[in-house]
Amino acid sequence: MKLVRFAQADRVQYGSLQGDQIQPLEGELHALKPVAGAGPIALGSVKLLSPTAASKVIAIGPGRRRVLGKAAPPERPTLFFKPSTAVNNPGDPIIFPPELDYLNHEGEIGIVIGRLARRVRREEAAAHILGYTCVNDVTAGELRKTMGTPMMFHAKAFDTFAPFGPVVATDVDPNNLDTECRVNGEVRVKARTDDLLYAPDLLVSWISHIMTLLPGDVISTGAPGVGPLRAGDVVEVEIEGIGCLRNPVIADS
Amino acid sequence: MKLVRFAQADRVQYGSLQGDQIQPLEGELHALKPVAGAGPIALGSVKLLSPTAASKVIAIGPGRRRVLGKAAPPERPTLFFKPSTAVNNPGDPIIFPPELDYLNHEGEIGIVIGRLARRVRREEAAAHILGYTCVNDVTAGELRKTMGTPMMFHAKAFDTFAPFGPVVATDVDPNNLDTECRVNGEVRVKARTDDLLYAPDLLVSWISHIMTLLPGDVISTGAPGVGPLRAGDVVEVEIEGIGCLRNPVIADS
Repeated sequence: MKLVRFAQADRVQYGSLQGDQIQPLEGELHALKPVAGAGPIALGSVKLLSPTAASKVIAIGPGRRRVLGKAAPPERPTLFFKPSTAVNNPGDPIIFPPELDYLNHEGEIGIVIGRLARRVRREEAAAHILGYTCVNDVTAGELRKTMGTPMMFHAKAFDTFAPFGPVVATDVDPNNLDTECRVNGEVRVKARTDDLLYAPDLLVSWISHIMTLLPGDVISTGAPGVGPLRAGDVVEVEIEGIGCLRNPVIADS
Repeated sequence: MKLVRFAQADRVQYGSLQGDQIQPLEGELHALKPVAGAGPIALGSVKLLSPTAASKVIAIGPGRRRVLGKAAPPERPTLFFKPSTAVNNPGDPIIFPPELDYLNHEGEIGIVIGRLARRVRREEAAAHILGYTCVNDVTAGELRKTMGTPMMFHAKAFDTFAPFGPVVATDVDPNNLDTECRVNGEVRVKARTDDLLYAPDLLVSWISHIMTLLPGDVISTGAPGVGPLRAGDVVEVEIEGIGCLRNPVIADS
């Protein structure tokens, strides 16, 4: 299934995307079912939202073999955090704060939690994963460069810096997907997801031993490469079997 | 006013604490009013909760003159983050994860947001502050020591590591209060709040330019000192004019 969340008039619903039609769904995130008697809705008639309402987005680094070079992966990656106020919808603008010089795009595959996870063993973790989505772990590039890791929460936490979507794909193998990050149509990073340093079930188990993961929370698995974003750009994160997350970058008004 | 949040049967309400009586309140956090026709409730008959349901707790460091020694304060303190899943109630246990060696107590005065704040100027910030509370910014001491700042989100984000309360005091001057942090009744840190490096209105304005602060969110202003906590301890953070936040520390079962 390709899960979406959408607004029509003032109503927010989950749905299953099939072509350009959405079948409305209801129930708990891990057990969504078609709304009885509700017919399909045209994709073009709704506003797509982030496919879940994440209470938190956790980013990790490093997460990909190709950014490590010949270095050994750390036993534990560093965790970064994006608050709920950073969550952004597919299509909506990434707001470029006037205090910053440039932003970085970090196109990544994200794990979406379907069922509350607290101290789950690795072999239980798959049952807590709803599926996978495209994440743009937008980061204030200059803060990262000049201030380093101590400023990474600051650099990643700005409003609108956590777009994800457009769907949660529930039936993909996250370890073998083509991904592209494009800026204004130009490919900036192209990388297959066959170099994840930490398997999704390992990440969910490990992080769930630190903090409870709530339904809808997202773990972003690390970027295979980064690059600059400036106001006026349009950035796309496309992952095979999931879709294309597209956001314009605009200056704060 | 001393604002509390409490549960009685399955109902959660705000209230104003007067002695050992609570007057139930209703409405928006920045405009709470007595519930018409509702009489006072005995404090002893309810379960006190964290005085707000924070979507995030932001910790800063360094925040106090006395921990800096002769060093100049940084232009911007480092931001740390505790997710909503770390929020803990007065009286409830701080859960000591089996993977950790020891915890640190960090007793601090916290700023509680009453009204959504996005890019507010310093001179507007006071209107967004509801009041002040006691925070224990519990931190995994060993992770901090061995891994340093890159692990600080990890070290501070464990479930139950953000107790705050017991009240939000709306009428105190946060810059001139006696504070004590005690473990098993023994004073570990005693420090007046006259050495805050960053005034509350400055912090609210600055952080609101990074991320939207939601009603109930907490900014913890930095500890004047830290010390170890072990399973079996009872830790208290007492601040003049606010009250005493008391939590036992128990091993995860």
